[in-house]
Amino acid sequence: MTIRSRRWFLRLGAAWSAALVACRPKSAPPGGEPRALGAAVSQYGSRSRFEKATRRLFTNTRVPLEEAASGTPLHDTYGIITPSSLHFERHHSGVPEIDPATHTLTMHGLVDRPLVFTVDELKRLPSVSRIHFLECSGNSLSEWRGGSAEPDVQRIHGLTSCSEWTGVPVALLLRECAVKAEATWMLAEGADACKMTRSIPMTKAMDDALVVYAQNGEPLRPEQGYPIRLLLPGWEGNSNVKWLRRLKAMNAPAMSREETSKYTDLMQDGTARQFTFVMEPKSLITRPSGGDTLAGPGLYEITGIAWSGRGTIARVEITIDGGATWQAAELQTPVLPRAHTRFRWPWKWDGGEALIASRCTDDTGYTQPLLSDLIKVRGMNSNYHNNGIQMWKVAADGTITNGNRA
Amino acid sequence: MTIRSRRWFLRLGAAWSAALVACRPKSAPPGGEPRALGAAVSQYGSRSRFEKATRRLFTNTRVPLEEAASGTPLHDTYGIITPSSLHFERHHSGVPEIDPATHTLTMHGLVDRPLVFTVDELKRLPSVSRIHFLECSGNSLSEWRGGSAEPDVQRIHGLTSCSEWTGVPVALLLRECAVKAEATWMLAEGADACKMTRSIPMTKAMDDALVVYAQNGEPLRPEQGYPIRLLLPGWEGNSNVKWLRRLKAMNAPAMSREETSKYTDLMQDGTARQFTFVMEPKSLITRPSGGDTLAGPGLYEITGIAWSGRGTIARVEITIDGGATWQAAELQTPVLPRAHTRFRWPWKWDGGEALIASRCTDDTGYTQPLLSDLIKVRGMNSNYHNNGIQMWKVAADGTITNGNRA
Repeated sequence: MTIRSRRWFLRLGAAWSAALVACRPKSAPPGGEPRALGAAVSQYGSRSRFEKATRRLFTNTRVPLEEAASGTPLHDTYGIITPSSLHFERHHSGVPEIDPATHTLTMHGLVDRPLVFTVDELKRLPSVSRIHFLECSGNSLSEWRGGSAEPDVQRIHGLTSCSEWTGVPVALLLRECAVKAEATWMLAEGADACKMTRSIPMTKAMDDALVVYAQNGEPLRPEQGYPIRLLLPGWEGNSNVKWLRRLKAMNAPAMSREETSKYTDLMQDGTARQFTFVMEPKSLITRPSGGDTLAGPGLYEITGIAWSGRGTIARVEITIDGGATWQAAELQTPVLPRAHTRFRWPWKWDGGEALIASRCTDDTGYTQPLLSDLIKVRGMNSNYHNNGIQMWKVAADGTITNGNRA
Repeated sequence: MTIRSRRWFLRLGAAWSAALVACRPKSAPPGGEPRALGAAVSQYGSRSRFEKATRRLFTNTRVPLEEAASGTPLHDTYGIITPSSLHFERHHSGVPEIDPATHTLTMHGLVDRPLVFTVDELKRLPSVSRIHFLECSGNSLSEWRGGSAEPDVQRIHGLTSCSEWTGVPVALLLRECAVKAEATWMLAEGADACKMTRSIPMTKAMDDALVVYAQNGEPLRPEQGYPIRLLLPGWEGNSNVKWLRRLKAMNAPAMSREETSKYTDLMQDGTARQFTFVMEPKSLITRPSGGDTLAGPGLYEITGIAWSGRGTIARVEITIDGGATWQAAELQTPVLPRAHTRFRWPWKWDGGEALIASRCTDDTGYTQPLLSDLIKVRGMNSNYHNNGIQMWKVAADGTITNGNRA
């Protein structure tokens, strides 16, 4: 059992309760609350009115909320599942309201047998459920210019979430259509107003791509593409086309707006990398993090999430001295491929200044780089694919701020 | 990858789309919907207005809704995570509204150092997240008298759900309190009006028990014990005391109402089994199931869930001939201990009458019994711990009803 192996709190030789401020001895049972009946059972539950965590709307004067983004409150989430109500959003023309009774998926192009599926028909086909992260390629954008003063993990890194997805393998649909051998790309098109389109290599489509209709045990949420979306495990969010209405087999990429003027990575020399689909290994300390204030010296659990679009997280390490030394964190099991992985590490804070961070390594051997090392390779022009190490600066008074700016 | 091994749809030598009624060839892309902007990003999401699945309230003339139960719509859930809004309920005096800022957990009794923890203090301690099922011991009660005419899986078996839970190991809290060696039991008491109490063997408390404060990535839902509950993986629901306010170390069980007059298993000879905590291996076909109507002969995916309070599901088998022959279903990976396990099996329905069911075997070697074999051992007096195989009767016209009554 996981618990039996978690002896580190004993190895520290410290009583956790002694480190807590308000924890106090008491031997009598608690007093009697009024014995009034509580609320009745109900048909559909909601959270406690005492809980206030919300997505943060990323707004500026140039972008209306229909094509904006909203970030998951990572500081206030637990484990590896993101609540569907708090899954990050990024839309290009708002969330369409689609009736599943009339929505269809058209499969055409370089196929011998073009087909149209209703949503009910897709649900009758062989299904697969898997837990995968989704991350916007523009997540952590604020740190590209050498670090920022953004104050907390939600504002900087909130565009990543993780769900259990259920759907039909795209490979099955393509075989039903008798896709031709010369089809090397697949166009995916959404039913939103802008008809979001991306070209997907056929190798990915035939590997682990899904047409998804359920998320965390219930039908897909509207903001995530209801009634159906494309899911490309480990690939940048925008390529996982929402409100999916069309898959077209092609022998070349379509060179759509979202793969030419947007979603390419501008390098220092003025050239751009195109079709950089995979989200590289990344990790974050989510608690304690920017905006927290430590109550005083003592024991704290450092926790956060790590993920890799290339595979499975093999190792997460923690530094409390700005990267001079690193120690292994414990990974929540099971560790799943292309999924958020929760890590935990006990920290005995001595009350002095500290620069804390996590870094991860995946099963391909790739280790998450320091932000400064990432910038050496990629320059400072890019908006996308920032997977640099996030430093949090702990001051002697316990306040925590963004420690990325040197 | 899971997908690469899922070749059975090809082995069947059948085109799934050909089996579908409405699926039709088409080569032109779909027509142009109006290009109006959709909804803006939002702070907290909700499901589509087209989705209607709800918990079913179990009501009768004797029991008010404050001490009733509500069942998960298992037919309409996907994968292994139950949406928190649809997690089954069973309350003894309603759902109390508790302010987490004032709620405390008192640890006392046979301990050297009695302690009181606030909720914030518990959240600062070393945490654990695990995916586990919870099942009411009274689930499937209707089938105890030799099978019933209850029409669907939600009414018969809806009192089981599965979540990712996060909390603090009870063992850690007991060690902080310096629990005495002579403490062999632990009383758990809730803060609801009835002060729900159960006695828990200390071996379980020290093994894998948790004081839980989060569910599926967000704070625990009110109906599940907000702000904290006891979680005893694999044990009957009522022992997982909600709205937990007290843990008392003892050298004998308290013999509370819920372990004497209730939650004991009355045998045929008039004696009763007491402290039957573990939920035995069980499985259910959830789709297609009672209330469904098959559209006509052809291919269908049979899917459902299996779980065992004793460990991990090793095998699920499907029968289409009332138990005469059985074939292995595919298990969704990873298969987790004491968690719902999703299974899937392709069925080529020939249009004739069929009696379909699943049975599971766990890693202890225990196989779920036929309902008739269970009754031979346990008699027909019991209300609890019914894990008999659920038969669904498929008529030639495609309608499906409860097939448990011989």
